[in-house]
Amino acid sequence: MLDSSRHNLKITVMKFFLVFAIIAILIAAIIAVLVPYEPRNPLSGKEWPPGSPWPLPYNMSSTATVLSFNPATFRIVPLVLNSEQCDPLDFAVSKYNNDFLFATIEGIPGVPDPEVGLISELRVLVVGDASGNTECQNFPRFSDDIDVYERYAITISSDGLADIQAFTVWGALKGIETFAQLIWNNDNFDGNGPLHFYVNETIVQDYPRFPHRGLMIDTSRHYQQEKIFYEVMDGMMYNKLNVFHWHIVDDQSFPYVSIRFPELSAKGAYTSRHVYTQEMIARVMEAGRLRGIRIVMEFDTPGHANSWGHAYPDLLTPCYGDGVTPDTPNYPQHAARENLNPMEEFTYSFMRDFFEEIVQDVSKDIFVHLGMDEVYPPCWESSPEIAEFMRINNYTSIPEVQEHFTTRHIAMVQQLGALPIIWQDPLDFGVNVDQDVLIQVWKNWGPDWESNLQNVLDKGYKTLLSAPWYINYIDYGESWRNYYEADPVLSLPNITEAQIPLIRGGEACLWGEFVDQTNILPRLFPFISAVSERLWSHDIPISSQATNDARRRLDHQRCRLLQRGIPSQPILNGYCGAWEVLL
Amino acid sequence: MLDSSRHNLKITVMKFFLVFAIIAILIAAIIAVLVPYEPRNPLSGKEWPPGSPWPLPYNMSSTATVLSFNPATFRIVPLVLNSEQCDPLDFAVSKYNNDFLFATIEGIPGVPDPEVGLISELRVLVVGDASGNTECQNFPRFSDDIDVYERYAITISSDGLADIQAFTVWGALKGIETFAQLIWNNDNFDGNGPLHFYVNETIVQDYPRFPHRGLMIDTSRHYQQEKIFYEVMDGMMYNKLNVFHWHIVDDQSFPYVSIRFPELSAKGAYTSRHVYTQEMIARVMEAGRLRGIRIVMEFDTPGHANSWGHAYPDLLTPCYGDGVTPDTPNYPQHAARENLNPMEEFTYSFMRDFFEEIVQDVSKDIFVHLGMDEVYPPCWESSPEIAEFMRINNYTSIPEVQEHFTTRHIAMVQQLGALPIIWQDPLDFGVNVDQDVLIQVWKNWGPDWESNLQNVLDKGYKTLLSAPWYINYIDYGESWRNYYEADPVLSLPNITEAQIPLIRGGEACLWGEFVDQTNILPRLFPFISAVSERLWSHDIPISSQATNDARRRLDHQRCRLLQRGIPSQPILNGYCGAWEVLL
Repeated sequence: MLDSSRHNLKITVMKFFLVFAIIAILIAAIIAVLVPYEPRNPLSGKEWPPGSPWPLPYNMSSTATVLSFNPATFRIVPLVLNSEQCDPLDFAVSKYNNDFLFATIEGIPGVPDPEVGLISELRVLVVGDASGNTECQNFPRFSDDIDVYERYAITISSDGLADIQAFTVWGALKGIETFAQLIWNNDNFDGNGPLHFYVNETIVQDYPRFPHRGLMIDTSRHYQQEKIFYEVMDGMMYNKLNVFHWHIVDDQSFPYVSIRFPELSAKGAYTSRHVYTQEMIARVMEAGRLRGIRIVMEFDTPGHANSWGHAYPDLLTPCYGDGVTPDTPNYPQHAARENLNPMEEFTYSFMRDFFEEIVQDVSKDIFVHLGMDEVYPPCWESSPEIAEFMRINNYTSIPEVQEHFTTRHIAMVQQLGALPIIWQDPLDFGVNVDQDVLIQVWKNWGPDWESNLQNVLDKGYKTLLSAPWYINYIDYGESWRNYYEADPVLSLPNITEAQIPLIRGGEACLWGEFVDQTNILPRLFPFISAVSERLWSHDIPISSQATNDARRRLDHQRCRLLQRGIPSQPILNGYCGAWEVLL
Repeated sequence: MLDSSRHNLKITVMKFFLVFAIIAILIAAIIAVLVPYEPRNPLSGKEWPPGSPWPLPYNMSSTATVLSFNPATFRIVPLVLNSEQCDPLDFAVSKYNNDFLFATIEGIPGVPDPEVGLISELRVLVVGDASGNTECQNFPRFSDDIDVYERYAITISSDGLADIQAFTVWGALKGIETFAQLIWNNDNFDGNGPLHFYVNETIVQDYPRFPHRGLMIDTSRHYQQEKIFYEVMDGMMYNKLNVFHWHIVDDQSFPYVSIRFPELSAKGAYTSRHVYTQEMIARVMEAGRLRGIRIVMEFDTPGHANSWGHAYPDLLTPCYGDGVTPDTPNYPQHAARENLNPMEEFTYSFMRDFFEEIVQDVSKDIFVHLGMDEVYPPCWESSPEIAEFMRINNYTSIPEVQEHFTTRHIAMVQQLGALPIIWQDPLDFGVNVDQDVLIQVWKNWGPDWESNLQNVLDKGYKTLLSAPWYINYIDYGESWRNYYEADPVLSLPNITEAQIPLIRGGEACLWGEFVDQTNILPRLFPFISAVSERLWSHDIPISSQATNDARRRLDHQRCRLLQRGIPSQPILNGYCGAWEVLL
């Protein structure tokens, strides 16, 4: 039952804030145009102080004027136009609660500093895009309208007023995270003297450089527990990453519990416990939604598909290890069966049914990743059946066999209404791929990733970059610098202005050969932070100096993650605070 | 109050077992002589099955005859001659309890298999060495009497009798660990059918290849919490490692809380919480004792000593960055002050007082590590004071200055009654080092560690090897193979028979630049297992084949560690068991 007078009051308040928000956004837009971007230390020190955000906002100005908080009474006030409900914002308000914003580990209560002004609340205003859509009831989606979709502005004025304005709830979530990062305190949690929390008078105008900022996790080589995903997505949210690319199955195991083909996991998973049920997947997707994170599912074909064969051996191509007998291996060239069988209609009808399930009943995102990487030719080359198939179809090379499958598979998935993503391999082998397919660049050779990315752009494809961000390739030392110094635009000497919009962003990738629940979190954090700043922040140069400038700020971000419960590993000598010994 | 009749019964029982033990040890010794060592799969499969021990015992024979356990009633019975109390053994009996030996994670109770015979108890008999010492009341110590000190024998006979015989309690602990590793079960914890635990009829004769099998941890670059040490030492015990080398202070911080000089940590620790108090150190040492692990403390001098200077700047040498002004830095050549000051008596008297505290009041081990690595010369070279000091002493090179300090420092520590260990550096620079000092080889260059080790042996020093076992140098892939394929004897083409006894063992080293509480455990485990087998097991060849043979067994060891609560990271694709999803 709706209380009518309260409802009217609410509408009046909303109208007031709509006018306020439009003025604020206009002012902010003018500032954004007039003030050229320059990463700068808001407190003018040489090193970025605690309270410096990661990733760097598009524009941020702070003064030396500080305001204080009362952790006992401070509150975040969500104000959403055109939406009675806004559960991602409700989730954020409950997540970024006062224990989170004013974390002391030891439970020492913070008190207002009587010397300076007080901020009593943060108003978070979601005004809706051009059509009034606040996105509150939706799953996050891909949008190349980066000026609007995740944009936010923060105003913390010297009179103690603090607000965030955003068009959509996804922008509001980004703004709340930045606001949380701006808060600092007066001591090192050593418990000496009263503890005060502060924020500087600050204006932030921010929006992402690229719309697709992702992390790929492989759950086939090693299984990851559901609880890990929540920790990972929390950490993604703290870094403004917005796509979780779930490489859910591969040769080694098939943990996905299909609705239509439950035998796939019954026979293909490591054990009956190493599975992702529909209920678990739905929970993960909902958790992603609340954090502004899209979940893009990958089912890799026609290679990396051995685990499909445990339940459905006819999906795989029989190899001829001895040249004459089907289903014979020739290690290490090929197994007894390998790669989806491109010759049989069964393969295509099965895949149609399977992907119909994914597109219509499981995935909440319009993109589906189809893999298409590393289709090793020896099995197909060994097969007289493939030779006959090639003769009938007038194919003269194995890539044409791959193209045969690829073309039908992509068209089928498109017909289901999904947008395919594939790894770069088919393009490398001259396979003719539909121009609407999004191409993910992963190879760091031939001769280098920059050439591979340029090649995909030259062919006119939209693209995602991952090649320099394979964070499973661990290395000693400040290895994050290599991730930080790879830029999908600046690293390409021959890129044209017209090609830049084809770059949709990129993804850090954590392949699972040597990663399981014992080590995944410190493997991810803070390395994905290096990628997140490259993809979110504008115009950070590729230079040792820029990377050196980022070191202390990244160290602080890793400490922030650690304090929030994510075991993010050190990148420098030192310590995060006296509180860390209590973790 | 001692019950006299029970006491007499106990003595009778002990006498019986003494006779039994002497016979058993004689038989085992005969077997050990007659049966040449050959690593072999006790169940004759191609791959080592669950239940295969790590590190490999000296000699082990199993038959296909299996015996079963009743996890509800099985017990370990300690029987110690010449000792009323034996708390390391009591600790082991309580640690290796039935929940530990018959872990199911899910709490599915195991039941005896009625088809096979039952083992109702494991008798652990400690008979004492030649002088009757069971070591029960002592701290573990260095002993090159490897045939006796940690030796043990296990007999599991087809009639259900199971016992361990050892000379000292330290051998008994090793035997209990091996016995625990021999237990396997009939399913994958999926809860299908009754759960049975088994052990094969087995005889084990085992003793270590080297007496000093260690792990070095650096707590200066990043602090490690006390609770981490217990997890680390548990993992060391599960791998039969017996020395925890505690690199407790370094340039970056001074967490050691000195009794005599508390200002060292008050000013040199990261914070007042990032410290190791005497109480904490005593607890860590006691925990080491119960696990058969010696704690060797390192206080690195004269380099790596900057953190001493926060409280006592006069301990450090003033550098002359501009050539004329003391206490001026010249980055990155040197800081304002660096290296202990070899010219001032204050340095020597301070160090005498400090090390007297360590040797007399703190360390329980006779060895003390004095560092002596990486004494960078630029500061001393910059100093007119050092130039004058050299002139007065007729020194013509900086290494003679180092020798000046080194010789006095080593003699002082020896005078206190301790046995010094140092890193190899003084020998590299021609410094004349007392022949009784134990030299730790750490450099993997100049041109390689094999030459460095050979060089130390050629000079007649006793030595510890660490150079190939710097497990902080992470690398992608099956990096443990490099650790496994380094052997202090087999890798040296020119080693002589007479030099082999000079090799006291070795240590894996985990330097702390990029390691803290977030990642230390998966950094250590299972990599230190690779080192542990190299140092414990006899005559494992250096070959890809030997390493391949070890892969599955090491994978099983990592799963064993994981099941026991240590986050040991994967070395191969796959999974440990359905139980891992419940961790």
